[in-house]
Amino acid sequence: MSGVTIAGVRMAAHDNRQVLHRTPLVPSSTLSRLTGFELFLKLENLQKTGSFKPRGALHNMRRLAAEDRKRGVVTISAGNHAQGVAYAGSVLGIATTVVMPENASPAKARAAREYGARVVLHGDVQGAFRKLEEIRNQENLAYVHAFDDPRTVEGQGTVGLEVCEDLPSFDAICAGIGGGGLISGIAFTTKTLRPQILVAGVEPEGAAAMHRSRLEGKPVRLDRIATIADGLAPPFVGELNFSICREQVDEVVLVSDEEIRAAVRILLERCKLLVEPAGAAALAALLHGKIEVPRGRRVVCVLSGGNLDLDRLKEIL
Amino acid sequence: MSGVTIAGVRMAAHDNRQVLHRTPLVPSSTLSRLTGFELFLKLENLQKTGSFKPRGALHNMRRLAAEDRKRGVVTISAGNHAQGVAYAGSVLGIATTVVMPENASPAKARAAREYGARVVLHGDVQGAFRKLEEIRNQENLAYVHAFDDPRTVEGQGTVGLEVCEDLPSFDAICAGIGGGGLISGIAFTTKTLRPQILVAGVEPEGAAAMHRSRLEGKPVRLDRIATIADGLAPPFVGELNFSICREQVDEVVLVSDEEIRAAVRILLERCKLLVEPAGAAALAALLHGKIEVPRGRRVVCVLSGGNLDLDRLKEIL
Repeated sequence: MSGVTIAGVRMAAHDNRQVLHRTPLVPSSTLSRLTGFELFLKLENLQKTGSFKPRGALHNMRRLAAEDRKRGVVTISAGNHAQGVAYAGSVLGIATTVVMPENASPAKARAAREYGARVVLHGDVQGAFRKLEEIRNQENLAYVHAFDDPRTVEGQGTVGLEVCEDLPSFDAICAGIGGGGLISGIAFTTKTLRPQILVAGVEPEGAAAMHRSRLEGKPVRLDRIATIADGLAPPFVGELNFSICREQVDEVVLVSDEEIRAAVRILLERCKLLVEPAGAAALAALLHGKIEVPRGRRVVCVLSGGNLDLDRLKEIL
Repeated sequence: MSGVTIAGVRMAAHDNRQVLHRTPLVPSSTLSRLTGFELFLKLENLQKTGSFKPRGALHNMRRLAAEDRKRGVVTISAGNHAQGVAYAGSVLGIATTVVMPENASPAKARAAREYGARVVLHGDVQGAFRKLEEIRNQENLAYVHAFDDPRTVEGQGTVGLEVCEDLPSFDAICAGIGGGGLISGIAFTTKTLRPQILVAGVEPEGAAAMHRSRLEGKPVRLDRIATIADGLAPPFVGELNFSICREQVDEVVLVSDEEIRAAVRILLERCKLLVEPAGAAALAALLHGKIEVPRGRRVVCVLSGGNLDLDRLKEIL
């Protein structure tokens, strides 16, 4: 039993309504023409904090014990989860500490600070994880996991819930995979409400933890990560996320950094949307025919975030 | 009598529903903090063709005489109206010719061609107007005016209608002014439905045709235009538009190119939206306290378009 329930997803949606956006779900005729599907975009880049992350962070942190809430929480993140937790902390009145690797996006670190978090920049990804453990132990802080937690998964599942509510029928839904929080939330919710819908996940070739884990039948840790999509770069997927995805995600496909860059450019030029590389990976897969859905079918592409420094954007243009 | 009616606006909204987007109206807490208002954004950059223009073009071209529809139409435009007319022509099965000055945005010219228009690039703005007259006379084509036409105004008024329908109460609405089509449509519709709402128009300092015309009490033609906002650069405003604005627009204020550039950057970085300079002018005015509305009031800012070549964007970043 995963501990994830559809009642939990609905509760997250209900409780989040006061402070988060119900993000637009918009059809795109340009991308429909380019992909051959009838394509809809779920605009999580327009969510508070610029990504879907506060959905899970809020649901998670609302359910902490009173003692934990009083002491505050800690987390680790390349950036978007950091902002989600920092924002949730500001809403719920909980002190937040976020550990980020030193090469994290400066804009993401600044934004987390602006939401009131204590930001600790430390080492590379491995070093940041060691720092996280150190702080957890020394300060006895509850750890808000970015993906491997039933409440986080239920919160991210509200993306799927909103799509199911807003679109009377569709054939497939596609989202990027980092640690697997978003895709497992979407897969659980969508397959529970509409079992016939195909759910596809997309990873960068240089950070294919879920793809590798599926091949090996268990969660694996990657030795090396190389991708432009910092939001999809955790070197492992969650146990819970792996297990939900094994049951409920139909396909996991890979895209190259060049395909991701092209998708970022197309979203900007043709759709007027700033989407970060992690958020554009799903579209990259659809543009390159990597998802096995017949032409003409109605497909929802989740644009999971838009937090991209303007100077990094400039490099991509 | 202007010939513009609220029934006409409602008819435009009804007929356009099949082919255009009802664009999202989204609150922005970041921009609310930066401006001091409770700010909502009307995302016309996400409209078909990347701007509000097809609203008026469709309504206008649906009402042409059968003979005119058969012969086809001609228009002149820096780009967005060209795309609006080209798109409307493709929807309605009407041949379209668009004259654009040679320095028009290449992306806008390409997009008009992709919608099936014959694009004639010719001279500077004055030269392009001469070319327009030449083609009208030689080919006996109906002219779809970008702003100085009751049907165009009614079509653009649907922006205001949607805002009034989507937002139970607000205090002010703010949009850019080029020839005056959008602002007169919004002002007519908003003042008819909710007379107490303040309507503000924004022009670039280097293309302040409406501002000058209001000072002189009649439409004037500017000798010289200098602005980064090509969509706000016609050297004159329409007679009809001037007359509606004199009655129903409360304020017309000016912004500098540097203020517009900063607004483009803020919309991209903080709101994840690509908005062209013409579309960002209204926000520039709100960010710089140029609109006389008390702090804390609920203000709608119309982001009128997002058609900006990526290499021009790169220069702005």
